Amino acid sequence: MIALSTVKIFGGIGSVFSQASAACGCDMRFAVYTPPEDIHGAGPHPVLYWLSGLTCTEENFIAKAGVQRIAAELGLVIVAPDTSPRGPDINGNDVPDDPDGAYDFGLGAGFYVDATEAPWSKHYNMYSYITEELPALIENEFPVDAARSGIFGHSMGGHGALTIHLKNPKKYKSCSAFAPIVAPSAVPWGEKALSNYLGADKNKWAPYDATALLRDHGGSQAHILIDQGTADQFLETELKPEIFKAAADQAGQTLTLRMQAGYDHSYYFIATFIEDHLRWHHRDLTQTA
Amino acid sequence: MIALSTVKIFGGIGSVFSQASAACGCDMRFAVYTPPEDIHGAGPHPVLYWLSGLTCTEENFIAKAGVQRIAAELGLVIVAPDTSPRGPDINGNDVPDDPDGAYDFGLGAGFYVDATEAPWSKHYNMYSYITEELPALIENEFPVDAARSGIFGHSMGGHGALTIHLKNPKKYKSCSAFAPIVAPSAVPWGEKALSNYLGADKNKWAPYDATALLRDHGGSQAHILIDQGTADQFLETELKPEIFKAAADQAGQTLTLRMQAGYDHSYYFIATFIEDHLRWHHRDLTQTA
Repeated sequence: MIALSTVKIFGGIGSVFSQASAACGCDMRFAVYTPPEDIHGAGPHPVLYWLSGLTCTEENFIAKAGVQRIAAELGLVIVAPDTSPRGPDINGNDVPDDPDGAYDFGLGAGFYVDATEAPWSKHYNMYSYITEELPALIENEFPVDAARSGIFGHSMGGHGALTIHLKNPKKYKSCSAFAPIVAPSAVPWGEKALSNYLGADKNKWAPYDATALLRDHGGSQAHILIDQGTADQFLETELKPEIFKAAADQAGQTLTLRMQAGYDHSYYFIATFIEDHLRWHHRDLTQTA
Repeated sequence: MIALSTVKIFGGIGSVFSQASAACGCDMRFAVYTPPEDIHGAGPHPVLYWLSGLTCTEENFIAKAGVQRIAAELGLVIVAPDTSPRGPDINGNDVPDDPDGAYDFGLGAGFYVDATEAPWSKHYNMYSYITEELPALIENEFPVDAARSGIFGHSMGGHGALTIHLKNPKKYKSCSAFAPIVAPSAVPWGEKALSNYLGADKNKWAPYDATALLRDHGGSQAHILIDQGTADQFLETELKPEIFKAAADQAGQTLTLRMQAGYDHSYYFIATFIEDHLRWHHRDLTQTA
């Protein structure tokens, strides 16, 4: 594990690391924030994993969301990984460049799945990376209490957070999302990604579809929080939170879906409500500790 | 004036505008944040002008500093202009590209002066733009109380804030800075910029040198706040806040200089202390209103 950068922020330490990933077959980057030791001691602390949206790297969230202020206050470790494999083997070699040059598939668009289709299956194994390799590394190298882990994310990363929580509710005890993709099998972003990564058989998509997971396996014990801006340009075509709300009602999943009037899909929306999410997770992880 | 983007953030409105500038002879961009009307009414509100550092545009501060949260709470308008003229006439036409390709001169490095030397004098008139043209536009188009205006900035923008405040203490009643260049006549960044924009005669630099202004004209009635990280990579070569502190003591300028242990030159440092600065200005502008 190599530290690429380290800064002091709100009394704690924000760093970006690179580590060879077996799951992805390349070096993967991730950001870690650890809260001020003089306030919260040396840990172990509760830990939240943040999954970013399309086009993002490990940097967007830590630079723009204002998360460190509240993590410093509450004593939370924050982990923000990159959104896809990246590097010299990924583009143009093992994996061809996207002929569309599109932002919604391939680089920056791993969708938090383990790809089964060539050529993606060689590197695009973000589900295993996020749920196994990364937390093992974090728990080994940082002062975190694995029994108090939560997960959250934005857009494609909200999809990742919801599916990973629903499949691993004891590992990630708390869950929230900003403007998540909740039914990837039924929207253009998801259809493009899942058909390429997983093949044409939609039955294989269900384990990576939050709405299908609720339908097929029921809900979790967590109280999930979703914030969705009403001025989000992707609300009606890609996000459709009402589909997840209906499935949650059907499955008995406790869910608070807040439609936030006038907010869009950007990090300005995330920054506005990030404090609510951290307090939500902190409360859930303290209660279940 | 054209709105290039508008978002809701922390209940208020964050926008980026473009407007033809007579001073700079090109379109200039600036960001404006107005606080929530349902909390603070329609104004007029106190207004703070933020001047950014080398390489920045109007975007860095609004995306990374976390300023909107506190501006929303206190009811402040925030204005963040670009750091230099920019556009098709600037690079390669009226003004040649910097042969060095350096970050510390020309594009993104206006240094908040009115250039007197060709070819810079045709466009590089940031002092007039910031102190006359921009506030006239802001006071005409936005709900601000010009009698409660303050100015602050970072690095090159801290230099801008200090010099503009000291030359216009009644117009900008409050002043603060993060890691400012305080003595441009005596450090490499300033020597490069001022010699090119203003010529070799150092007497012409004094009106744009905060330390020289204190020496030659005395201090202001404001209580200036400066935060400076001790791990700032530019502290010893370019910033040297102790020079300004000595001049302030000599001139009777009230100054609080806080050396912040372990912080660097980045927006992570700014984000950590931005709340203190907004409260500082708000208090000063409320007292003097």
